[in-house]
Amino acid sequence: MNSFRFDDAIEGIRMSPIVSISEEAKHKEPEFFNRTGKKMVLFQRGEIDFPTPKYIVDAAMMALELGKTKYPKSGGEDELKDAVIKKLSYFNRAEGFSRDNVVCTYGGQEGLELLFKLFQCKKGAGFAPCWSCVLENFVPYAQTDFAEVPLREDFTIDFDELERIIRDSSFFYLNTPQNPTGKLFTEDEVIRIAELCHKHGVFLISDEAYETITFDGHRHFSPLSLKFDNIISVFTLSKTYSMTGWRVGYAVSRNKRIIELLRLGNYTQTAGVTTFVQYAAKEALSNHAESDRHIKLMNEEFCRRRDSLYEGLSSIPGIKVNMPSGAFYLFPDFGDLIPQKLSLNDRKLYIYHRLLDNGVVSVYGACFGKFFNDHIRLSYSATPHDVIEEGINRIKNAVQ
Amino acid sequence: MNSFRFDDAIEGIRMSPIVSISEEAKHKEPEFFNRTGKKMVLFQRGEIDFPTPKYIVDAAMMALELGKTKYPKSGGEDELKDAVIKKLSYFNRAEGFSRDNVVCTYGGQEGLELLFKLFQCKKGAGFAPCWSCVLENFVPYAQTDFAEVPLREDFTIDFDELERIIRDSSFFYLNTPQNPTGKLFTEDEVIRIAELCHKHGVFLISDEAYETITFDGHRHFSPLSLKFDNIISVFTLSKTYSMTGWRVGYAVSRNKRIIELLRLGNYTQTAGVTTFVQYAAKEALSNHAESDRHIKLMNEEFCRRRDSLYEGLSSIPGIKVNMPSGAFYLFPDFGDLIPQKLSLNDRKLYIYHRLLDNGVVSVYGACFGKFFNDHIRLSYSATPHDVIEEGINRIKNAVQ
Repeated sequence: MNSFRFDDAIEGIRMSPIVSISEEAKHKEPEFFNRTGKKMVLFQRGEIDFPTPKYIVDAAMMALELGKTKYPKSGGEDELKDAVIKKLSYFNRAEGFSRDNVVCTYGGQEGLELLFKLFQCKKGAGFAPCWSCVLENFVPYAQTDFAEVPLREDFTIDFDELERIIRDSSFFYLNTPQNPTGKLFTEDEVIRIAELCHKHGVFLISDEAYETITFDGHRHFSPLSLKFDNIISVFTLSKTYSMTGWRVGYAVSRNKRIIELLRLGNYTQTAGVTTFVQYAAKEALSNHAESDRHIKLMNEEFCRRRDSLYEGLSSIPGIKVNMPSGAFYLFPDFGDLIPQKLSLNDRKLYIYHRLLDNGVVSVYGACFGKFFNDHIRLSYSATPHDVIEEGINRIKNAVQ
Repeated sequence: MNSFRFDDAIEGIRMSPIVSISEEAKHKEPEFFNRTGKKMVLFQRGEIDFPTPKYIVDAAMMALELGKTKYPKSGGEDELKDAVIKKLSYFNRAEGFSRDNVVCTYGGQEGLELLFKLFQCKKGAGFAPCWSCVLENFVPYAQTDFAEVPLREDFTIDFDELERIIRDSSFFYLNTPQNPTGKLFTEDEVIRIAELCHKHGVFLISDEAYETITFDGHRHFSPLSLKFDNIISVFTLSKTYSMTGWRVGYAVSRNKRIIELLRLGNYTQTAGVTTFVQYAAKEALSNHAESDRHIKLMNEEFCRRRDSLYEGLSSIPGIKVNMPSGAFYLFPDFGDLIPQKLSLNDRKLYIYHRLLDNGVVSVYGACFGKFFNDHIRLSYSATPHDVIEEGINRIKNAVQ
């Protein structure tokens, strides 16, 4: 039965290159350790090295003790939805929502997957570089005809090119703050993108996974605060509350028809999100005193890491790096350090391999679309300060 | 933007009729209470009125305390997979599996949904009556061309008809013990079905959600104990361990290619199953002393309920009812009590409405396919003994 051809959508899903990279690193680790007596420096991970705050864990335990272990309400528990609506007002300055505008999902992942699926086989677009999971998972799974709109070298937007592509699309995918660049799109940029979508009757899928991780006094601007009904925002508790393994998030839109379809899709796929986890999520969103303190603490640490990594990279001749205002990634350009004569395929992996040989694990730019082959993504979400310094020294050695 | 036509697969999903029925009952409740001073008797639910056993809740809390809150391993935690492999040997007498044969899913629901999706737009088949979620959710979501093979009046199999349909299908869906009949397919029946599938190169999707809920000394036989690689069994902890709201289950096959595709699908849809829930599931499957005691206690209670419901229904002239050996449903035939002159559509709802007017909530047979319109599903999963007696009296009044 091994020759049977299953559904193209599932057959087309690719393994995340980041998983392969982590496996390659694991294979290389013993040889590197024997040679240097040191561990690898891991800059490839999306995991966070903070624990889930205790008040959220306690809320989960309380819900378990109260027997919140029966089937969840389809679309999400009312108490969680009410907490989401208050949070949208409190944090996103987005008003005018009722329970019918909200659906609870397994992280941001399920919200995005279902949205891409809503546009099965249609044309979509998003900025390049683009989160690898969109390209490797959602696009093949929903058989999207996906166009990449490249950001400029300084990660600003070419609005003419954007409009040219949006005009032809059913939806546009925006991720702000962005993986892999750490770019926080400004309020002005978000409004112009949303207006372009509105003008051309295009849906805007807004992935706001990193909304609370912003630096230097900058604040995330959610398109959801605009009064358009073509916008669907996808949120997750994974990053904000160090809850990556809890798998809980929510999608919100003024368009109730879309929320209803997401609810049906969520029910069909999973019969709803784990009941007591929803009560923990409710506590995370509602307990402002605790969550503001947690977010502040985490952001201060992330900001310190960003600063050292940015300064370190800037000090290495030949590396061009933009200062990000959000998320926990840097996406430097190593183009000047790659030999000119290499083939495109060798070029894509050249810096990645140089770094790996020197004990630094990174993700090569080709994982994020077709326009940024000379770049490397470095994540500092789980890399303490001293390890970052060691990493910088190794990068220096690797490229000199 | 409200005229936009989204993906047919999601647009085609129907609301579970059982949800509408529960809502209709809720609307009727005040009027019924005013008239009679009594509550409705609820026979429509799939929920279980046992709490999750304490040793499983404790395992979840322990996992939370140990910080098992990071991203799950794609496909499932090794410790859970190892527990599944041991359980397959201990309970299902199915041997020869390794971690690559197992994938962890959000309940049985996600396993089944992904399997239907694997056969997107292809021909599938299953026995009628058939679990409503297959017909209302999985079939439209995967755009399956689904054929129903009716069981006989006594719920035995017409193997000639079965072979005629299987020959033409890509997969066959088997649910044993079965929702809505409570039929436990015998070892001989399961083997003959599996052999027919094997003979015609057809995949067998085996839904074993109720595997531990069996009565009168009968045991569930899993096709997974056969050595065919065309069989995929889907399990959930929902019913066995009163864990409906936890959303955890697993799929197993000797065919590693299918398990790999399920893993990719699960990752794409949800990024994997909540990490600490997997550790609770591991404890549920591994702690035989506790789980055997829990299952015995639950089955004794279910058996008592089945007996009263069966005896009560049998005592009412005009109702034909088969004695089920598993799950927690009865599916009596009210055909002789329905006026002959009714149109098909009125016929479908006649008994359901008679019962509802008399304060009994049930699910009408048309929810389970096209062949059993005169039947009614009564679930006793959340209906205590004294309420069942009250229900029987009301049914008696309703049809006399």
